[in-house]
Amino acid sequence: MTKGPVTPLLDTVSTPADLRKLQPDQLRQLADELRAEMVDAVSVTGGHLGAGLGVVELTVALHYVFETPRDTLIWDVGHQAYPHKILTGRRDRIRTLRQGGGLSGFTKRSESEYDPFGAAHSSTSISAALGFAVANKLAGTPGKAIAVIGDGAMSAGMAYEAMNNAEAAGNRLVVILNDNDMSIAPPVGALSAYLARLVSSESFLGLRGVAKRVAKKLLPQRLQRAAERAEEYARGMATGGTLFEELGFYYVGPIDGHNLDHLLPVLENVRDAEHGPILVHVVTQKGKGYAPAEAAADKYHGVVKFDVVTGAQAKAPAGPPSYTATFAKALMAEAARDDRIVAITAAMPSGTGLDKFQAAYPDRTFDVGIAEQHAVTFAAGLAAQGYRPFCAIYSTFLQRAYDQVVHDVAIQNLPVRFGIDRAGLVGADGSTHAGSFDVTYLATLPNMVVMAAADEAELVHMVHTAALHDSGPIAVRYPRGEGTGVPLPAEPQALPIGKGRLAREGKKVAILSLGTRLTEALKAADELDAKGLSTTVADMRFAKPIDYDLVRKLAATHEVVLTVEEGAIGGFGAHLLTWLSDEGLLDAGLKVRTLRLPDIFQEHHKPEVQYAEAKLDAAGMVETVLSALRHNSVKVLGARA
Amino acid sequence: MTKGPVTPLLDTVSTPADLRKLQPDQLRQLADELRAEMVDAVSVTGGHLGAGLGVVELTVALHYVFETPRDTLIWDVGHQAYPHKILTGRRDRIRTLRQGGGLSGFTKRSESEYDPFGAAHSSTSISAALGFAVANKLAGTPGKAIAVIGDGAMSAGMAYEAMNNAEAAGNRLVVILNDNDMSIAPPVGALSAYLARLVSSESFLGLRGVAKRVAKKLLPQRLQRAAERAEEYARGMATGGTLFEELGFYYVGPIDGHNLDHLLPVLENVRDAEHGPILVHVVTQKGKGYAPAEAAADKYHGVVKFDVVTGAQAKAPAGPPSYTATFAKALMAEAARDDRIVAITAAMPSGTGLDKFQAAYPDRTFDVGIAEQHAVTFAAGLAAQGYRPFCAIYSTFLQRAYDQVVHDVAIQNLPVRFGIDRAGLVGADGSTHAGSFDVTYLATLPNMVVMAAADEAELVHMVHTAALHDSGPIAVRYPRGEGTGVPLPAEPQALPIGKGRLAREGKKVAILSLGTRLTEALKAADELDAKGLSTTVADMRFAKPIDYDLVRKLAATHEVVLTVEEGAIGGFGAHLLTWLSDEGLLDAGLKVRTLRLPDIFQEHHKPEVQYAEAKLDAAGMVETVLSALRHNSVKVLGARA
Repeated sequence: MTKGPVTPLLDTVSTPADLRKLQPDQLRQLADELRAEMVDAVSVTGGHLGAGLGVVELTVALHYVFETPRDTLIWDVGHQAYPHKILTGRRDRIRTLRQGGGLSGFTKRSESEYDPFGAAHSSTSISAALGFAVANKLAGTPGKAIAVIGDGAMSAGMAYEAMNNAEAAGNRLVVILNDNDMSIAPPVGALSAYLARLVSSESFLGLRGVAKRVAKKLLPQRLQRAAERAEEYARGMATGGTLFEELGFYYVGPIDGHNLDHLLPVLENVRDAEHGPILVHVVTQKGKGYAPAEAAADKYHGVVKFDVVTGAQAKAPAGPPSYTATFAKALMAEAARDDRIVAITAAMPSGTGLDKFQAAYPDRTFDVGIAEQHAVTFAAGLAAQGYRPFCAIYSTFLQRAYDQVVHDVAIQNLPVRFGIDRAGLVGADGSTHAGSFDVTYLATLPNMVVMAAADEAELVHMVHTAALHDSGPIAVRYPRGEGTGVPLPAEPQALPIGKGRLAREGKKVAILSLGTRLTEALKAADELDAKGLSTTVADMRFAKPIDYDLVRKLAATHEVVLTVEEGAIGGFGAHLLTWLSDEGLLDAGLKVRTLRLPDIFQEHHKPEVQYAEAKLDAAGMVETVLSALRHNSVKVLGARA
Repeated sequence: MTKGPVTPLLDTVSTPADLRKLQPDQLRQLADELRAEMVDAVSVTGGHLGAGLGVVELTVALHYVFETPRDTLIWDVGHQAYPHKILTGRRDRIRTLRQGGGLSGFTKRSESEYDPFGAAHSSTSISAALGFAVANKLAGTPGKAIAVIGDGAMSAGMAYEAMNNAEAAGNRLVVILNDNDMSIAPPVGALSAYLARLVSSESFLGLRGVAKRVAKKLLPQRLQRAAERAEEYARGMATGGTLFEELGFYYVGPIDGHNLDHLLPVLENVRDAEHGPILVHVVTQKGKGYAPAEAAADKYHGVVKFDVVTGAQAKAPAGPPSYTATFAKALMAEAARDDRIVAITAAMPSGTGLDKFQAAYPDRTFDVGIAEQHAVTFAAGLAAQGYRPFCAIYSTFLQRAYDQVVHDVAIQNLPVRFGIDRAGLVGADGSTHAGSFDVTYLATLPNMVVMAAADEAELVHMVHTAALHDSGPIAVRYPRGEGTGVPLPAEPQALPIGKGRLAREGKKVAILSLGTRLTEALKAADELDAKGLSTTVADMRFAKPIDYDLVRKLAATHEVVLTVEEGAIGGFGAHLLTWLSDEGLLDAGLKVRTLRLPDIFQEHHKPEVQYAEAKLDAAGMVETVLSALRHNSVKVLGARA
C-alpha cells in the first residue's frame, strides 16, 4: 500500500454532502489536499494528470455550490474528473484507476450516481446536459445541469450544435468553459484566437467587479426585452463575450479558475439566476499546483507512473518503435518524394505522430482542431483538386466523420487516404477508445479499400500503397502500441490492391489473418503443427477487396478455415462468409470459423486479458480450430440433391 | 417534347463564358428567362423548385463575376443548383432531372466540370471549398473557392468546424450565406434568431452604401492590426456581423439577393479583396418570381409535376398511408398513453411526420435544426433522466451521428429509440439519400436492437415495442413511400425482442426476409411453389438479435436458405452467416444465399429498376434460389473427417 499524503480535512469528506458542511474558508485547504492526493494516486497508476490538476478548485467549488447529484454535473471528455472521483465516494479506489477491475479513467455511469453521463470522446457534455435540463423542466422537478467543457472541445461542431439549441433549457443549464488554452495539442482555429482575445483584452475582474457584473447580468425577467438587448450588446463590447451571447447564452467571465474567492460567489449567482442558459468562462492552468506539470504541461497530459518529488516518469523499457511513429516516418518519406502529399489531424498531432510531420512540412500539415467532420471533407476537397491527403484519425474518432466518409469521399470516389490509428483494443483506455468498428463501417461502403498492417514493415508498404492509390479512397488501420520489431524496408513497395500473402504453408488448417494478430496466428500455427495439424497462415492485408483467389485456393485445399481480425462482427470474416455463400462454396460443407471482437463493450484492462477474452490470442485460435475439427458434421439436410 | 418558354437571351448562353460576354444590364432579362426555363423544366420533371428559384440572380451573378470553373463554385446541398445546371452546359438535359439516366437532382462531379464537388447532405460546402482554396494556395495556382450555403445548413456543427478553420484559405475563400429564413422546416435555434436580428436591425443597404461599406471593409493589408480590430468591433456593432467576424470572417451584408445592381458590385469587390476569408450575407426569398411558390414556399420546396400557369401539382393516386405517416401516428398514440415519450427531429419535422406530433405535443417535440450529433446525445441525456425519447432521423442522415450512437447511446446502453426513415432505396433521390448502411453500422454495435418493419401494421407494433424497451437502445427502420395497405391494428402489440414470425410455410426453400421486401418474398414463394419448390417465408423482424431458434429450425428442414434485406453487405445476412459458422451449421453443407444491396452506389432511377438491379424483387429472389439449387455441390474438401 502506498503511503499517501497527509490530508486531515479531505479525510472528513467522502461525499459532496460532507463537503458542503465545511466553511468557505476551509475550501482552500481542502483543494490543496485534494491536489496532493490526486498527484500521489496518479503517480502510482499513471493516467491523465494535467487536466485534473487544472480543475481542482473548480471541482470543489461546483460540488460546494450545486446540489450534486440532484444537479447533474457532466465533465466533458472526463479525463479531468479524477478529483471529482475522489470527492464522490471513490477515494478508496482511486489507486485502481485504469487497472483491470478498477476505476475507469473517464466518467462512467455504472461507477457512480455522481457520473450522470459518461464520457471519453470530446464535446458531448452540452448536448447531454441539455437532455437532463429539459427532462427536469418537462417533469417539473428541481435540478440543474452543469457541463464543464474545455476550450479545445469547443472547436467541435457538436458543441456548437448544442449551444445553438441551449435556449430550450432556460436557466437550468450552466456551461463552464474551462479555458486552459490547450487541449492535448496547441490551440488552433478562430475560436481559440477569439478566446485568447477575451482573456487578454481585460485584466481579470476582482471579486467586487465579478459580483457586480453578475448581479447586473442576471437581471430579473421583468426587464424589457429591448432594454436587455441594448445592454447585452454594450456588455458584449465591454467583455467580448458576444459570440456566446449571439448563440443565446449569458456570458460571465473571464474569471480565475484557481481563485475560490471568485469562483464561489460567481457560481452562487449563476445557480440562483433567473435567466439562462449561462456560460461561465473560467481560466485555468493545466497542471496547476504541481511544478513539473506546470512547467511542461504537454508532457504531463497523460503520464505513466512517476516520482512525486522529482516528477520523473518511469521509463518504458526500450522496445520497437510504435505503429504511430512508423506511420509518421513513412508518411514523411512519401512527402519527401511527392509534393502532393498533405497531412491532416483533428487535434491529435502528437497522438498520430503528425507533430513530426508538421515540423518537417508545416505548410502541408493541417491541424483542424477537434473537428473530424471538417477534416474529412476538407481532405476530400484537397483530393478533388489533385492533392494526396492523408487523414490520420483514431478509429474511434473517425466515427465522428462517418457521414463525411460516405457522402463526400466514398460516393464521389475521391482518393482520400485514411491512417486509422488505435484500430483494435486499447487496454487501459477502455471501450470508449477501442477501435472496434472501422472495418465493418468502412468495408460496407462501395469504392473503399481497407488495409490492415500485420507489422510495422507492412505499414510502411501500405502507406506507400495508399499514397499511390489515386483511383478512390483507401484506408490503412494499425493498432496502438509498439510494433513487432521487424526490420523496416529500405524502400517501400506498392502492394497489389486486394492481394494477400502466405506467411506459412500447411495442409489441413488455414488461418486467414487480417492485421497484427498475425503474430499470434503464427504461434497458433506452431502449436497446431505440433499437434499434427499442418497449418497455413495467410496475411490477407486487405479487408476490402478480399483476395478471393487466395481464399478459393485455401478453401479447396484445407479442412478448416479460420479468419482472425481485431474488429467487431460485420467486417472481414463476415464479408468472406458472404462471398463463400455467394459462390456456393459452402454448399457442400466447409468448416469456417471467424474470430473477432466479442459482442460486448470490453472493459479497460491489460491488452492480453482483453485479447484472451476475445479469443484473439494463440490459445483462442487453437481452441477454436480444435473445436471445429471435433465438431460432428452431421448434415442437417441440404445439398444432397 | 414540351414547348418551353421564349428565351432569346438564354438561348445564346450555353456556358458561363457566354454569360460573361453579356453586358451587366442584360443580366436582368437573362435571369428572368432562366427562371422561366427552370419553372417549365421542373413542371415536367418534378423536383426541388423553391430553392432554385431563390438563387436565380445569385447564380447569374456568381458565374458572371467569378471565373468558373477555374474558380470553384460549390452549392451546399445542391438542390438549388438547377439554374446553375442550365447555365453550365446542361440545359439540353434539364428536362431529364431525377429521371433514370438523366441529370441528378443534386450537384455531381461526374456530370460536369462546373460541379467541382457533389452534394446532397447539408453543410459540407465550406469544408470542401476550403480544400480547394488551400490546394490552390499550396500549388500557387489562381482560383478562388465559393461556397453557397443556406441559413438552415449553418446550424450544423460541420459548418462551424469549417468556419473555425477558414483562415487557412485567406482571401481564396468566399462564403455566400444564402439567408432565406427557411430550409425545409421553420427556422430553429439561436443562430436563426441571430440572423433574423441582423436582417431586421437595419434596412438593406442601398447600392452606394454597399459599395462604400465593401471598400471600407476590405482595406489593404498594410493597415495596422490594432486599428483593424477596433474598426471591426465598431462595424460589428453597426452591422451585427460579429459572430462571423469572431470566427475569423470579414462579414458583408445583409444585401438583397434578387437585386443584381447590388450583387454584382459587392461580388466584384469581394473577388478582388486582399483580405479574407469573406462571408457575404445575402437575403433571398424561396420560390421568388413564381407566384404559387412565393405564396406557399413549403409546398413548393419539393414538387411533383405541376401546371405552370395555375401551380396545381399533379395529384398522386390515393394510396395507402406512407410509412412516415404511420410512424408519426403510432408515436402519437404512444405519447397519449405515456408522458415520458418525447420526439426529436433534426430539421425534418415534415419529412419524418413529426410535424403532426409537434402539433399535438409541442412541449414534447424538439426540432434541433440540422444537428444530428446533438439530436442523438440530447436524446441520450433525456433517456438517462428517465424519458423515452424517439429520434426520428433518415438512415442516411443518422450517419452524421454515428459516433454519438456508439459513444453516448450504445456504450452507455441508454434506451434511445431510433425511428430510421428512408431506410433502403429512395428512387429519384439517388445514392446520396439511400439508406443503405444502417443495419450494418448499427447491428455491429453491442447492446443495439435493430428492427425492420415488413409493413405498416408491423411498424405500429415496432413503435410500441420500442416505446416499452427500457433496457437499452432500439431502432426501427422503415422505407420511403407508401405502405402495403394492410389494416392497421386497433391495439399495438409488444413484440418479443429477437423473435421472427412465419409468414408462410413450405418445405424446400426458406426465405428469411428482413423488412418490406417481404411482399416480394411472398411473390417469389408463390412462383417457386408453382415450380414445385415448396417455400417457407419468415419475416425475421429483428436484424439484431436474430431469431436463431427459428434459423436453426429452418436450416435443419430446408434445402436452400435465402436471406433478403434492403441494406448493404455486413448486415442481417452477414450476421446470420457468422452465427451459422460459429455453430458449425455450415460444416456439412447448407445452401445459403444472401440478397442485399449491391456493392455500388446505385444511381437515381425508378425504385423498381433499382430493386431489379439489386435482385431484391421477386424475379431476383427466384433466380437466386434456382441458381442455388442448380449449383453443383461438389465438396471442395473439408469435413469428411
